[in-house]
Amino acid sequence: MKRRTVVLLLGGKERTVLQPVLGRPLGAYALEAATRLGPDAVLVFAGAGADQNKWEGLIESVETGTPVFLLPAGKRPARNLAFLPAALVTARAILEKYPERDVLVVPADRPLLRDRTLKALVRAHVAKGSSLTFLSGAGETGLAGVMVLRSSDVFPLLRPVPRVRAAAGFEDLARRLTKAGKKVGFFLCPDEGEILPAGDSVAVGRAARELRRRKNEMLARRGVVFLDPSSAWIDWAAEIGPRTVVYPSVVIEGPTRIGGDGRIFPHVHIMSSTLGARVRVLSSTVMEDTVLENDVQVGPFSRFRPKTRVCRGAKVGNFVEMKNTVFGPGSKAQHLSYVGDSTVEEGVNVGAGTITCNYDGVSKNPTRIGAGAFIGSGTELVAPVTVGRGAYIAAGSTITKDVTAGALAIARARQVEKPGWVLERVRARKSGRRGGKP
Amino acid sequence: MKRRTVVLLLGGKERTVLQPVLGRPLGAYALEAATRLGPDAVLVFAGAGADQNKWEGLIESVETGTPVFLLPAGKRPARNLAFLPAALVTARAILEKYPERDVLVVPADRPLLRDRTLKALVRAHVAKGSSLTFLSGAGETGLAGVMVLRSSDVFPLLRPVPRVRAAAGFEDLARRLTKAGKKVGFFLCPDEGEILPAGDSVAVGRAARELRRRKNEMLARRGVVFLDPSSAWIDWAAEIGPRTVVYPSVVIEGPTRIGGDGRIFPHVHIMSSTLGARVRVLSSTVMEDTVLENDVQVGPFSRFRPKTRVCRGAKVGNFVEMKNTVFGPGSKAQHLSYVGDSTVEEGVNVGAGTITCNYDGVSKNPTRIGAGAFIGSGTELVAPVTVGRGAYIAAGSTITKDVTAGALAIARARQVEKPGWVLERVRARKSGRRGGKP
Amino acid sequence: MKRRTVVLLLGGKERTVLQPVLGRPLGAYALEAATRLGPDAVLVFAGAGADQNKWEGLIESVETGTPVFLLPAGKRPARNLAFLPAALVTARAILEKYPERDVLVVPADRPLLRDRTLKALVRAHVAKGSSLTFLSGAGETGLAGVMVLRSSDVFPLLRPVPRVRAAAGFEDLARRLTKAGKKVGFFLCPDEGEILPAGDSVAVGRAARELRRRKNEMLARRGVVFLDPSSAWIDWAAEIGPRTVVYPSVVIEGPTRIGGDGRIFPHVHIMSSTLGARVRVLSSTVMEDTVLENDVQVGPFSRFRPKTRVCRGAKVGNFVEMKNTVFGPGSKAQHLSYVGDSTVEEGVNVGAGTITCNYDGVSKNPTRIGAGAFIGSGTELVAPVTVGRGAYIAAGSTITKDVTAGALAIARARQVEKPGWVLERVRARKSGRRGGKP
Repeated sequence: MKRRTVVLLLGGKERTVLQPVLGRPLGAYALEAATRLGPDAVLVFAGAGADQNKWEGLIESVETGTPVFLLPAGKRPARNLAFLPAALVTARAILEKYPERDVLVVPADRPLLRDRTLKALVRAHVAKGSSLTFLSGAGETGLAGVMVLRSSDVFPLLRPVPRVRAAAGFEDLARRLTKAGKKVGFFLCPDEGEILPAGDSVAVGRAARELRRRKNEMLARRGVVFLDPSSAWIDWAAEIGPRTVVYPSVVIEGPTRIGGDGRIFPHVHIMSSTLGARVRVLSSTVMEDTVLENDVQVGPFSRFRPKTRVCRGAKVGNFVEMKNTVFGPGSKAQHLSYVGDSTVEEGVNVGAGTITCNYDGVSKNPTRIGAGAFIGSGTELVAPVTVGRGAYIAAGSTITKDVTAGALAIARARQVEKPGWVLERVRARKSGRRGGKP
Repeated sequence: MKRRTVVLLLGGKERTVLQPVLGRPLGAYALEAATRLGPDAVLVFAGAGADQNKWEGLIESVETGTPVFLLPAGKRPARNLAFLPAALVTARAILEKYPERDVLVVPADRPLLRDRTLKALVRAHVAKGSSLTFLSGAGETGLAGVMVLRSSDVFPLLRPVPRVRAAAGFEDLARRLTKAGKKVGFFLCPDEGEILPAGDSVAVGRAARELRRRKNEMLARRGVVFLDPSSAWIDWAAEIGPRTVVYPSVVIEGPTRIGGDGRIFPHVHIMSSTLGARVRVLSSTVMEDTVLENDVQVGPFSRFRPKTRVCRGAKVGNFVEMKNTVFGPGSKAQHLSYVGDSTVEEGVNVGAGTITCNYDGVSKNPTRIGAGAFIGSGTELVAPVTVGRGAYIAAGSTITKDVTAGALAIARARQVEKPGWVLERVRARKSGRRGGKP
Repeated sequence: MKRRTVVLLLGGKERTVLQPVLGRPLGAYALEAATRLGPDAVLVFAGAGADQNKWEGLIESVETGTPVFLLPAGKRPARNLAFLPAALVTARAILEKYPERDVLVVPADRPLLRDRTLKALVRAHVAKGSSLTFLSGAGETGLAGVMVLRSSDVFPLLRPVPRVRAAAGFEDLARRLTKAGKKVGFFLCPDEGEILPAGDSVAVGRAARELRRRKNEMLARRGVVFLDPSSAWIDWAAEIGPRTVVYPSVVIEGPTRIGGDGRIFPHVHIMSSTLGARVRVLSSTVMEDTVLENDVQVGPFSRFRPKTRVCRGAKVGNFVEMKNTVFGPGSKAQHLSYVGDSTVEEGVNVGAGTITCNYDGVSKNPTRIGAGAFIGSGTELVAPVTVGRGAYIAAGSTITKDVTAGALAIARARQVEKPGWVLERVRARKSGRRGGKP
């Protein structure tokens, strides 16, 4: 392409364009497609009364590598040609910095537009020496609202067309350009699905489905193995390494990174986490803002809250919750435990039913467990507390004081037996007495 | 519509028509569409040998606002015109109460029929002054078995046509009506999909899919935000408020009510429950017959059994089960607990691993926890038992007696340490001894 | 069919053909379809440098009832006619044992080929007395690579056509056969979808989806009730009995057998297990290599590891893990427990929060619980340990010694109370002191 471009992104209905689709605002998709052309600048026209922060969020969700200017729109949502004159007034100062450009106009509510379509549109526009080229669908879909125009030809002819139907505005402009000896062209969109506006919630749903399909297809082409691509829900920003197997009904949100040769079992929900290579996430596991290093296995039914790191080769099992914890290399916590605000060194065995009592009703307190320690099942570790390296906690203990390295700590009552008690209780109940609590 | 209608719902194959689809019998959909016309009465013909209770259940699953009569059918399933003469004998006493009506005949196994189609059919029938109007599909689908007829014209001409093909019966009747100078018409169904019979399990599956799509589309139009409409399974009877976000793979059964501005995370299963506004249900949570008041957060991995109420602002977390319990405003039970047959007042903190021991092997007993109490982690509350307001239970205690308000209750053994025990055990094992249990 | 057949399965790209689809290698589907013709032998040509074990696994995943010979291919993947001459050299010794056969050539990467299509192809070939019959699609799909040939006519004419396009090889062969006075025919595949090659990961995904649809449709025809057939993922090798209801998002892997009249709730993941009749698996349950006998109920959130048997009428509830255990008839473990390496007799009640401490840091030890025993909540059973029949363990006990039948065993500290402690602690903290741990 010899000539250079500037992109105008028309915000449209805020409720639609800011609705999250695969983890980012719907409008981000059209913005991304447009910026892939490598324009000199992008001007984003927010809707009137728009929430500035949200529009900035939309822009930030795309890596543009281009100057992007956020401009307030007029009183009506920025959507079509009728809006352009007002927009040009608003944007004059910026546009003057980029004279003699081809201006690509894209409504933000076309999430399915592909960059290759926009590139082909601009290419055709330039090749034919046109002043204005509309992207068009065949039949019912008609003009798409997407167009490219030669600013020096078109801007002078634009005039406010408030309350006129967009199509009328198009026709009017085309007529005047032709009169002035300029060329007006149409470029047929190869896939009409791309230009359908996501005008209401049902259309947004349909677009979301198609984007999901595209994302999963992209990952499959890079070697991810989906057992059922149609039921995996992967955030647009997520990445998964080759040969990792993704089971049905997996949901992955946010800028999650998953290494290669892993296995994500069914009904897993991962949010904004980082997983190394060869990680196995067994069924129905939930995690957020968590790091699982290489060769870790977690789940089923593990739950990781933010600021947790599970180090290489460690195993975390069913009904185990971790939060704000470093869990050392090769350590294990396989059953029914809560490990919070803790530092666990390597090779530790955390028995079933272990609870770090990190909250005393007033403040949160830390637990430290040294390398190679063995925490017997059914143990409460009342924080702040430190268990020394290689120490052994007897099952059923409530540990309130620090434990010396290599020592056995025990805190439980002696077992006593009352022979025949069961029969006696039956008799007592039969004769109308309650029988004491066991 | 000047003239008034009576509906005949022909039961068809019981196995199909009573099969649940989105939480109610498949036949209920055709019944609902027909009753939306505001007929004076609906006559439902069950199949022969039909289970009366189940058919009553079908009728009750629809709010008709119309007298509905359930009639036994003849020996063959009530499905088409051949059946009408016998039906008219059975129904004579009722039909005589509604003379001079347009009679709309609808087979129950057409779950996709829309009320607007039936209305258009009756409108066309009346407008043309026809005696009999068939709903028809183009091409292969042919006659639908749905028709409207002027009873005074048609009934006298009907005669038993046992074992004849329905189409032959139609032709025969049409011929005789024409001979008698009456009009017979056809009304083309605008969407042929509506008239396909759900004749076998595969067709039922297809219908279920389409009904699911319609339900979710309806909710989306009212402002529910589906991240993946295609994987959410919402009962026909369920309602969800605007701006509530529904994640993928959510299953909502029964007459569940969910308020607005909520968030239902993936892999959640809700049955017949009531959720207030701004409720967050984190991933993989299961509940049945439960009330969550406004601003409650539950999950992930919470499980609520029937007769549980979680009061406003309360939080219930992972691996926590509740049953037959009122859980007070702002109270918290975040980890690995079982709270059953309990009354928990406001602002209570239930620590990790707390168990209400409600069953003593003979009967179920209640637990009461006063406002502001703190239950330390790993506590067993042996019911019946009462913890006073503001009381504090030390971690690892087994509480068998009532606790006074503001008191500390503690029931655990002293911690002792055996230095060097671990090394000693290793030596013992090496020399062939077992080494005592820790 | 008068004449008898031999099948050549051409291995194609190993990465594709060995990729698991519904639990078995993709290539197994074409192999199965071909063996349904009842050929005298099947010759499988693996790709060059192929992993012999994996190809044997592919063959073993199909019950052929026919001698199957696994042959190494040449240097290029075995995929089309160009490959046949080399293949015939390799296979000569075998083919000589089966002279005068019709040879059916099937590329392994056509998982959607139906046996009835292959039968019709061979039938047409024989009926017309052809020497070579190609299976063909209309339009773009063209020749399928599937063909049947009369070995005595075709083999002598084959010559190596390395690096030539398959189609050229076809044309060349057809020309020479015609010249020799032999008939060459085409058989149009009735469903073009069947002959599409699963050439890349996206095509494999599409094929997987169609096979899933077929599997679920087969089950539905046999009486399985799917609430949402599109979201259930059922292994090709799995079987489910009639009237069993399968909820959405269920995943069933491996050669699982499920009896009739059961109920599999949403988000369940079953691997290689055997379930009896009338079994209810509540939501979000995970199991592997497990037997659930008749009338068992498990879940939600149960987790069964290998070598577990739950006997008739038993109930296992939420947040309960079992492993290598026999759990007796009518026994119950409903909440937050870990039962491992155990033998539990009938009618036992395992209270909430029960943990079998089967690992002492050195070895795994067994637990035995006699019939009718009652294990109070929050109990640790330190294995090896035996609880006698009808014995009663008090809540909150850590049991380290065997318990006599009918006895009460208790191992816990006395409850003491410090009145006013909470207020005192508040004062202490206010005045800057920490206040001892409770």
